[in-house]
Amino acid sequence: MAGVLAGMRVIEGSAFVAVPLAGMTLAQMGADVIRFDRPQGGLDAHRWPVTRDGTSLFWAGLNKGKRSLAVDMTQPAGQEIITDLICAPGPDAGMFLTNLRVRGWMDYPALQARREDLIMVSLTGTRRGEPAVDYTVNPSLGFPMATGAEGSTEPVAHVLPAWDCIAGGMVVNALLAAERHRLRTGRGQLAELALKDVASAMLANLGIVGEVLANGVDRPKAGNSLYGAYGQDFVLACGRRVMVIGLTDRQWRGLVKLLGLDQQVAHLGQRMALDLSKEGDRWLARKEITALFAPWFAARRLDEVGPLFDAAGLTWSIFRSFAEAVHQDPDLSPDNPMVSMIHQPGVGMLPVPGSPISFSDLERMGPAPAPVLGEHTEEILGDVLGLGSGQIGKLMDTGVVSQGIVPKRAA
Amino acid sequence: MAGVLAGMRVIEGSAFVAVPLAGMTLAQMGADVIRFDRPQGGLDAHRWPVTRDGTSLFWAGLNKGKRSLAVDMTQPAGQEIITDLICAPGPDAGMFLTNLRVRGWMDYPALQARREDLIMVSLTGTRRGEPAVDYTVNPSLGFPMATGAEGSTEPVAHVLPAWDCIAGGMVVNALLAAERHRLRTGRGQLAELALKDVASAMLANLGIVGEVLANGVDRPKAGNSLYGAYGQDFVLACGRRVMVIGLTDRQWRGLVKLLGLDQQVAHLGQRMALDLSKEGDRWLARKEITALFAPWFAARRLDEVGPLFDAAGLTWSIFRSFAEAVHQDPDLSPDNPMVSMIHQPGVGMLPVPGSPISFSDLERMGPAPAPVLGEHTEEILGDVLGLGSGQIGKLMDTGVVSQGIVPKRAA
Repeated sequence: MAGVLAGMRVIEGSAFVAVPLAGMTLAQMGADVIRFDRPQGGLDAHRWPVTRDGTSLFWAGLNKGKRSLAVDMTQPAGQEIITDLICAPGPDAGMFLTNLRVRGWMDYPALQARREDLIMVSLTGTRRGEPAVDYTVNPSLGFPMATGAEGSTEPVAHVLPAWDCIAGGMVVNALLAAERHRLRTGRGQLAELALKDVASAMLANLGIVGEVLANGVDRPKAGNSLYGAYGQDFVLACGRRVMVIGLTDRQWRGLVKLLGLDQQVAHLGQRMALDLSKEGDRWLARKEITALFAPWFAARRLDEVGPLFDAAGLTWSIFRSFAEAVHQDPDLSPDNPMVSMIHQPGVGMLPVPGSPISFSDLERMGPAPAPVLGEHTEEILGDVLGLGSGQIGKLMDTGVVSQGIVPKRAA
Repeated sequence: MAGVLAGMRVIEGSAFVAVPLAGMTLAQMGADVIRFDRPQGGLDAHRWPVTRDGTSLFWAGLNKGKRSLAVDMTQPAGQEIITDLICAPGPDAGMFLTNLRVRGWMDYPALQARREDLIMVSLTGTRRGEPAVDYTVNPSLGFPMATGAEGSTEPVAHVLPAWDCIAGGMVVNALLAAERHRLRTGRGQLAELALKDVASAMLANLGIVGEVLANGVDRPKAGNSLYGAYGQDFVLACGRRVMVIGLTDRQWRGLVKLLGLDQQVAHLGQRMALDLSKEGDRWLARKEITALFAPWFAARRLDEVGPLFDAAGLTWSIFRSFAEAVHQDPDLSPDNPMVSMIHQPGVGMLPVPGSPISFSDLERMGPAPAPVLGEHTEEILGDVLGLGSGQIGKLMDTGVVSQGIVPKRAA
């Protein structure tokens, strides 16, 4: 199957989340994405989670559908191979994504000397080139101090590497925008962004910078309450927990109606001198609303509540652990057209997602496994750089490149 | 200044985070993005945070640099205006982003009947079209049960609408990929994605689905520890808290060396029969490592620790509240070339970020304020649809469209 980006070739020198995710996003839309790593694997080769025998499920998850080249970048011949790949000719090539330190032979001026219209997207930690990861960016901007139980003073870090995931999307945005510009003008360029800047911009985009400066407010922790409107978690009679949302008028009116508490809500508004049809007033009365709603939930089981909420078209969900989600949620199984069972080398059969985007002019691309490190070394040197088997053999013998071996699939 | 997407025109019918963020991302790269809303404002017109007089800082943050059209979509003439805008001719037009329910006149077949090569990107809650928001998607997939203090059984929701921000990036990816396809083939298409699918895919991408199925592990809460390697928060003598990272070899060796604890770490590894040069073994020994490191931090102040960590090139940060970040972090101020002080109508002067991406072939675009609702109605009807002042006046008189009034800037 050909994806929407069929024909595009992108070279990726990366580790961890953001740039690998960017490359995978392109691969899952049909681009030929070649990730190069040193022969012993990149910095993320062993990143947790890992299987019991040490295969990285993280690496397998973030490098699906790419081709892998294992090359010794400390040798000039290895640097030459990478440069040749990045600067290979063709209107759909000459694109390079990286979060590596690219001083010297791999920086933009050095590469551009070999291909004038090169597009390169470089992600750094901070705008000053300092190291930064999700685990440091997040505390520096305040999110952990606003997360968790009301009244607590302990910071709570999020476990999703959210800034990395967001930055990965922006790396794709930058590449596609720069390629559009190159198609129109013939000009390549270096697009640069920093993980910290992506997060800093979002702090302002979400109105939090304005809240501090215009209102003098330092947002406190508010547990699982939906900020600025109504949304809350409730424990049911069966012990399961649900999240219910009253953000929009429609959601709020539907929720109150389903619970049969219209009169009580009206009285509460009068008593508190608030207009609970306004989202901000619902926020101010959230504790009183929750006290009013809680007995309804405490008296009902999930098998009763779920169908009622679904029938009313309300916005709600249950709380699950990761394992419960994987075992219970059909969206994570091949019931979802995004997901197929495929064999991941070193791991086994797994339900694996392709791109979340479906394009109506193209058949949906099924997911592809991640490569084994160096799986495509020989193929890439042959079909992209045009090297013969003698040349490739010599590069293997001198340790400039290495060829990964795909483990035999268990019967 | 012209951005990298100069000339592109995108129509946006949206509310809340993901699609508004997508439109803003395009606008901040130079596209002409027209957001249409009903005359009383969209579902997010009053979303918190708001200023004391009710202006939404959230709306202002997520709609910067767009043009705003206020139009009554319940009137056929209003539907006609929107259809004309979405289907306006030109190779750089005919692109529509939405997270609205698009049944009937605004669905893809109806619009495509007016412009054969239309590109439309539609974001829904779930793949079945059910409503979903970050606050419901997140609990359903397990993150809140893996977030917060070790041993706690209370779920902790994240306060960043992370899935929305990630989905917004994917909406941009989808649009730019589909436009690339149209340039090559002449064919438009409908690209569809669901917030829940974006999150479900990421659960697998990060290896969490594999961890459950291959390892039988349901990841427990682990406080602020960096999962699978070493990273921990420490309270200093001055009461400030820092996060320090020992994810890569380089980070770990640098950290141990700076603390002067090489011998003690070696002994700890021997005592526990672990190889602490391996990231996974550091995770298994994280509590013992933290106990070994804590006295060093407890004896030192931030003004001593910070310069030492910076000089050693380590990966670390301090914890701040939102207000501390805004007041103390130069990355959120015009010291950062991404940020400028601009006047936001109804709010005042604020440090406002533009795009986090800088493109070397173009001057960096400064940030633009968000429009007032309907600010550009007359201008859009004139310059895009070619209506004369008489026609526009009639549409105003009949309430089909309305023109927003920008409040006078306070002296």
